[in-house]
Amino acid sequence: MSSAYRGDATLADLLTQAGIRRSPEELRDLLAGVLAAPEPEDPDGWMLLVGEGLAPELAGQLRALKAEMAAAAPAEPLDLAGRVAALRAALKRRELDGFLVPRGDEHQGEYVPPRAQRLAWVTGFTGSAGIAAVLAERAAIFVDGRYTIQVRAEVPADLFEYRHLTEDPLADWLVEALPEGARLGYDPWLHTIGWVEKTRAQLERAGIGLIACLDNPVDSVWRTQPPPPLSPVVPHATEFAGATSADKRARLSDELKRRTLAAAVLTQPDSIAWLLNLRGADVPCTPLPLSFAILGEDGGVELFLDERKLAPATAAHLGNQVRVMPLESFGPALDAVGKGGRRVLADPSCTSAWIFDRLHLAGARIERDTDPCALPKACKNAAELAGTRAAHARDGAALVRFLHWLSREAPKGGLTEIGAAEALLASRRQGRHFRGLSFDTIAGSGPNGAIVHYRVTPATDRRLEPGSLFLLDSGAQYLDGTTDVTRTIAIGTPTAEMRDRFTRVLKGHIAIATARFPQGTTGSQIDVLARLPLWMAGLDYDHGTGHGVGSFLSVHEGPQRISKIANTVALQPGMILSNEPGYYKAGAYGIRIENLIVVRPLEELGVELPDAERPMLGFEELTLVPIDRSLIDRALLGAEEAAWIDRYHARVRDSLAPVLDAADAAWLERATAPLDSAP
Amino acid sequence: MSSAYRGDATLADLLTQAGIRRSPEELRDLLAGVLAAPEPEDPDGWMLLVGEGLAPELAGQLRALKAEMAAAAPAEPLDLAGRVAALRAALKRRELDGFLVPRGDEHQGEYVPPRAQRLAWVTGFTGSAGIAAVLAERAAIFVDGRYTIQVRAEVPADLFEYRHLTEDPLADWLVEALPEGARLGYDPWLHTIGWVEKTRAQLERAGIGLIACLDNPVDSVWRTQPPPPLSPVVPHATEFAGATSADKRARLSDELKRRTLAAAVLTQPDSIAWLLNLRGADVPCTPLPLSFAILGEDGGVELFLDERKLAPATAAHLGNQVRVMPLESFGPALDAVGKGGRRVLADPSCTSAWIFDRLHLAGARIERDTDPCALPKACKNAAELAGTRAAHARDGAALVRFLHWLSREAPKGGLTEIGAAEALLASRRQGRHFRGLSFDTIAGSGPNGAIVHYRVTPATDRRLEPGSLFLLDSGAQYLDGTTDVTRTIAIGTPTAEMRDRFTRVLKGHIAIATARFPQGTTGSQIDVLARLPLWMAGLDYDHGTGHGVGSFLSVHEGPQRISKIANTVALQPGMILSNEPGYYKAGAYGIRIENLIVVRPLEELGVELPDAERPMLGFEELTLVPIDRSLIDRALLGAEEAAWIDRYHARVRDSLAPVLDAADAAWLERATAPLDSAP
Repeated sequence: MSSAYRGDATLADLLTQAGIRRSPEELRDLLAGVLAAPEPEDPDGWMLLVGEGLAPELAGQLRALKAEMAAAAPAEPLDLAGRVAALRAALKRRELDGFLVPRGDEHQGEYVPPRAQRLAWVTGFTGSAGIAAVLAERAAIFVDGRYTIQVRAEVPADLFEYRHLTEDPLADWLVEALPEGARLGYDPWLHTIGWVEKTRAQLERAGIGLIACLDNPVDSVWRTQPPPPLSPVVPHATEFAGATSADKRARLSDELKRRTLAAAVLTQPDSIAWLLNLRGADVPCTPLPLSFAILGEDGGVELFLDERKLAPATAAHLGNQVRVMPLESFGPALDAVGKGGRRVLADPSCTSAWIFDRLHLAGARIERDTDPCALPKACKNAAELAGTRAAHARDGAALVRFLHWLSREAPKGGLTEIGAAEALLASRRQGRHFRGLSFDTIAGSGPNGAIVHYRVTPATDRRLEPGSLFLLDSGAQYLDGTTDVTRTIAIGTPTAEMRDRFTRVLKGHIAIATARFPQGTTGSQIDVLARLPLWMAGLDYDHGTGHGVGSFLSVHEGPQRISKIANTVALQPGMILSNEPGYYKAGAYGIRIENLIVVRPLEELGVELPDAERPMLGFEELTLVPIDRSLIDRALLGAEEAAWIDRYHARVRDSLAPVLDAADAAWLERATAPLDSAP
Repeated sequence: MSSAYRGDATLADLLTQAGIRRSPEELRDLLAGVLAAPEPEDPDGWMLLVGEGLAPELAGQLRALKAEMAAAAPAEPLDLAGRVAALRAALKRRELDGFLVPRGDEHQGEYVPPRAQRLAWVTGFTGSAGIAAVLAERAAIFVDGRYTIQVRAEVPADLFEYRHLTEDPLADWLVEALPEGARLGYDPWLHTIGWVEKTRAQLERAGIGLIACLDNPVDSVWRTQPPPPLSPVVPHATEFAGATSADKRARLSDELKRRTLAAAVLTQPDSIAWLLNLRGADVPCTPLPLSFAILGEDGGVELFLDERKLAPATAAHLGNQVRVMPLESFGPALDAVGKGGRRVLADPSCTSAWIFDRLHLAGARIERDTDPCALPKACKNAAELAGTRAAHARDGAALVRFLHWLSREAPKGGLTEIGAAEALLASRRQGRHFRGLSFDTIAGSGPNGAIVHYRVTPATDRRLEPGSLFLLDSGAQYLDGTTDVTRTIAIGTPTAEMRDRFTRVLKGHIAIATARFPQGTTGSQIDVLARLPLWMAGLDYDHGTGHGVGSFLSVHEGPQRISKIANTVALQPGMILSNEPGYYKAGAYGIRIENLIVVRPLEELGVELPDAERPMLGFEELTLVPIDRSLIDRALLGAEEAAWIDRYHARVRDSLAPVLDAADAAWLERATAPLDSAP
């Protein structure tokens, strides 16, 4: 399929022949954006941005031009000292005494495109959360407990002090490091209004001013900063979405009218993707287009994004109640919507200070409340639930094929974390509707399993050794659902301690899985059920127990979660959550057992409680993957816990056996045998 | 001891003879305040306000004058329609379209003195929480689920609409009932700033103004409104407090300096009582003087109260770092402390809007944060814990004597709720350091037990009948500690359903009692442990699981609690909490099992966890009262739960037997026999 690029003149001819009115220059611009987006599952998917059904010769030349541009991209040396010095010079020109470099982008999302990876560019730190402060003489980087080791490996100690994000708060360090009267800059696009107000109050007490910068000083010195990503924005079929965008918008519009709100400003790309039944590929692992939107009380939407991203079918899909506008129009549109003191909804927890400031200046009365899409998006409808069940069956079959292969391959001794992760990906690729991973696979062998957010690299890649545990946390995006599953697998014979810890984690997992709870119960309330078996032995894990999961969207979504951190959102029918207690012994091994579960009314789960006085809820298991029986210490389980395992395994077996080949099915039969049966 | 009052001239002579420079007129004023305070355990205790060691004749005349004044108090007819009409006329004079009448007083406390019982005066409602809105044509009273029956019995339906405090929010009703442009009055002393800001924002959207009234319109028409209560303010011995006030103030002063705060405004009488080691008797059941205070960064305190309340020894006890000032000086003192933009701490959750407004006008920079006394007050020191253990042993002995008596008396058939409560009070009175009840006893027989906050009255008094349950929730104030205990007692033979429900409640109680949890865990996190055995059967209870308890102070105190309502305060060593799950079957019976427990490091509880990796906490039981074995369905308990009951009962027996007479000890022996022993 590949051929050399034959030059702009040839390309121009081919474009003209195809009736495409775009110059090679425009296409180079487009391709720069394509190259700034993640590599999609379909390597030619981006060609939709040029046109549908391109002739082979034109497609070949476009492919060749893209390859040439990728190869020609300047490899910038990792001169962190030079970058920090350039940033300091830029600050000096702006009469700033310092500048804050957060990890987030304008949408405060988990994944950020290369253009927004300012923290990595300035400091070298590639983790998924953190913030740096660069002052004239000092600089510091703040990361959480997941990244204390990684930050030391990536960020030079002579350039940045290392600080703990929550234990050594940024504001305290700034107050100590900056004199009274200092001017500290920040990019108002990259911080939420909530964060700015809190931080400003803390700094003002020490006489330090927090100054909004009109342009980002990092961008001014980052000569090779990539452009924003360009990936096709495509319709998400109603078959999978379960409701048309018009229906969703009508529902939200009623809500706005009821609350006498003129409009809602939407800044979360997954909310906008849900509302408009759109999908994209601007960031890794999450099928969403980066965009902003304003939803009016009439149900009309102004959608702000680079119009070049729209696939040919998308405009018709959006219909005439959705007006696509360039990003440059977003500010003027905010002015218009806020004019005359109109009441506008914006979520202070995820909306940038820039937007609040602009609305405020426009005269808007801002109603601070949760993103109105968050809750309806979280409560999946019947079509979405049917889709996710189908996706989980495919995903479970992929896992079983992989686990069977692993059971043969691991004893040979040559298998590494990367090899295992690649085999699992290959198995998943066989599944219908597969669209890529939902997050970077965590494949932690032995001590690597104890690093909660481990990402395997060639440098850290470990072999799967006898007597060790292998923690495998992975997930996939399917057109009909998003998966996320963790299994911990004994390689060879586990120790008694490993079995004790695994069984305690399992007891916590079962306690969540079997919990029944009244309407109105939050995830925070039930979190302790997952921890108590560990607590009773003086053990715990330092992460949440469960996060919300989208429907072919973000693998981490709100507003629900199961966590010790207080959360006021009640668990409601249709919400998908993970159930993933764990235990981590630093330098030795990690254990995590994760299934996705969905909240259901108890009566729909076939549970009958004759004495029940209140409407009760419970969980349905979505994930269908066996749990390693060799790690279960049966003596630590009660009869009901053991029965749950057997019931779950029977369901996994019955659901997957029909789609597996005989050898895989036979392995699954053994892997899901009842606990008290002969081994 | 009683004799007739012989007239002011005689009294004047006796006062002169005793060297007391007070006129009979001044004494009548004083006595009016004494009569507006609750009846104390020592009926002559108030005489400290006149002098120490009064001659018998003077004491007799003072007693006689008090009796004469009490008898002469005008009995105001309960003309609620007349009162509402008078209030409406007063509102019209002020050009107000309505006025809010909350249940709280200036301190937002649980108990309010007669003077502040405006809600009861206007509406007739005597419950402990609620608010009324009186408009020109309409009026409504808002109460919570505890009071839906009581409000209908007490408040005339032709005067007030009944509304649910949380399900039909006040603001919604006001928006519906008032026109745009309406002026709604409120007394800024009686609402917290947090409440005012939230409510004002809600009303302003509908164009309704929330107008602070300089005087309370209710007071202007309540001709017989009592004066503020006057009860002796006495020192609380360091023996019981465990730390001097100087030590406590030094500690808080360090905290203020560290936070660069000039002062903290204290509005919670129990915080002030704790800080200054003072006790009083201005409200029922809680030994505290109503007062305000300002704590300066130097550890000095300005204490605002009616100086006539100070017992003779109190001024010396307070020392020269505490300046007693009349209540009238509080406003000017706020002006002084806020002047020049000084940073002043005030707690928005319990500080009245009046105080915030005054500080704001004075130019203060207000730091909104928790009352600085709340946390140190909650974490009891060693002396307080030793005191509460001693108080609980005395209280347990009183309960055992009572329960033994009840076991003989109840079968006779004549015993009622009031009779039982009086017998229990008499038994408690035998205990050293007894100072009264810590709350009104809840003694609910049969269906009355299902009313969660039942208060027995002659009209509702029920006999204890065979086959019923008797729910008894009571507590006492002792100089060395505050108790609160609930036992549910089978009268005759309970049904299988009662035993099932009781055992589920007990399982929840044991789950809390035996929980181990890491430092940093909040009460909200563990609340579910108490509920899960009920949830599994589709049952629940509509109250919190546990509240904080003071040390010879409020039986309900913060900041910790065990509740499904989110709470960010970690459980810390020394915190006393109740553990009181329940179950209520309307019209049939109520069940609650309540012990007080105290948070302790696990190692101090004699628990060894060889594999523990984190500092863990657990609970020590304070309450020592047997749990009715006839209500336990042994088959529903696991082996560890049964062992807990037996261990607890053995401790109750071993602790109390030495102080009981032989008959009571023999009864206790039977009541605490191991579960699996022959009956």
